[in-house]
Amino acid sequence: MTIKLSGIDTDAPNDLNKKKIESKTIDMVVKIGELQHKLYAEGKQSLLVVLQGMDASGKDGTIKTVFADCNPSGIDAYAFKKPTEEEFAHDFLWRIHQKAPRKGNIMIFNRSHYEDILIQRVHKWITDDRAEKRMEAINAFEKTLEFDNNTKVLKFYMHISSERQQEKLQERIDDVQKNWKHKAADWEENDMWDEYMKCYEYAINKSTIPWIIAPSNRRWYRNYFIAKEVLKALEAMDPKLPVLDNTDV
Amino acid sequence: MTIKLSGIDTDAPNDLNKKKIESKTIDMVVKIGELQHKLYAEGKQSLLVVLQGMDASGKDGTIKTVFADCNPSGIDAYAFKKPTEEEFAHDFLWRIHQKAPRKGNIMIFNRSHYEDILIQRVHKWITDDRAEKRMEAINAFEKTLEFDNNTKVLKFYMHISSERQQEKLQERIDDVQKNWKHKAADWEENDMWDEYMKCYEYAINKSTIPWIIAPSNRRWYRNYFIAKEVLKALEAMDPKLPVLDNTDV
Repeated sequence: MTIKLSGIDTDAPNDLNKKKIESKTIDMVVKIGELQHKLYAEGKQSLLVVLQGMDASGKDGTIKTVFADCNPSGIDAYAFKKPTEEEFAHDFLWRIHQKAPRKGNIMIFNRSHYEDILIQRVHKWITDDRAEKRMEAINAFEKTLEFDNNTKVLKFYMHISSERQQEKLQERIDDVQKNWKHKAADWEENDMWDEYMKCYEYAINKSTIPWIIAPSNRRWYRNYFIAKEVLKALEAMDPKLPVLDNTDV
Repeated sequence: MTIKLSGIDTDAPNDLNKKKIESKTIDMVVKIGELQHKLYAEGKQSLLVVLQGMDASGKDGTIKTVFADCNPSGIDAYAFKKPTEEEFAHDFLWRIHQKAPRKGNIMIFNRSHYEDILIQRVHKWITDDRAEKRMEAINAFEKTLEFDNNTKVLKFYMHISSERQQEKLQERIDDVQKNWKHKAADWEENDMWDEYMKCYEYAINKSTIPWIIAPSNRRWYRNYFIAKEVLKALEAMDPKLPVLDNTDV
């Protein structure tokens, strides 16, 4: 089935009560913390959470909220920025692979290897042929994490509307507490919205490991939605706290 | 075409004059140094030399001889040993990928990611299914280095006979200058020779990027043979020394 982003709602369903949802989110955040503790203690599996989305789609806010109850010893978040000179002197997966989670840990990618077939493709810094080869390389890479390191790869596309993005970019100008996030260049990327959506759809539809489309226009619903998916994934991984039996003592 | 190692000679051809060959090798080593200089100055392509072979097949000696004229600034050799605890907590390519050469450089792998489908398979530390998945991952990985970082991947299987290996392992005991290389465990691996050959043949025949089988029973011929192939590869890469034109000054 081909995913068409324009056909998927960016908003929260109408019939939800914001207060109740926020309270459910808090419950789930606690459970995520408990499962992270077990994952860490077990030391056999790992979780890679990939957050991709346009500027102001809420990647930072999601990390802060959903993983609030996790022990920093076993979790890390890394924001991939413009590659350094050393990173550019290597293939695009070189810097990504280094940040893959070790067994027992959760790693959150704030942006990721997908930027190398998104921003780079939209701006035509790479050819379509190269983007396609990179897509194949990404599929092989993520598969390797799964089969060779028991890494669950959980990828979210933070689905926001172009109008909502503009509102949130404007907030960064109007609200002094958010000024630090303002970058004039972000508005330019908004001009290329349709091109970005095309490239996102390519990545989403060509990925072997499926993406989860997270409606992200409303912070409270986005946090709820993503917390639910993270919790479901951790429950399926079912990490076990190792306990001593008689032979160990 | 399927390669059968037992059908390939491990010795030097009979009609060669050792002194003349050694002199030719020296000429090629100088040329390799000159091309490495250009590769480094150009900064657009890289060369990854993978040396795989049984113990005492001459990996160290090859590195010392063939790359003797290269500038250490632009070349590095890395010997992959038993993985550390941190390395084991990641997929098998994690530590390998980090050592991939940057543009402009030559990297020599003394052993490599292939050990993860050789020693690990021979000892049955991994299943055949995992070895097969790793082989696919290796093909994708090497392809990524090629298309995304202009890396030429040049892989040598150092082809030595079991009898010749035993002689050379014995030299390590008899010659005090070579005592430092002796490890009792190396003799145990010799007992599993046929199993190793089977796994090497699998790797060689399933690789997308072809292997070069280097007859390695005689040091002088092995050095000549490998120097010739390295030189040929560098000549094909044809690195150009950047020169200023009028617009640059």
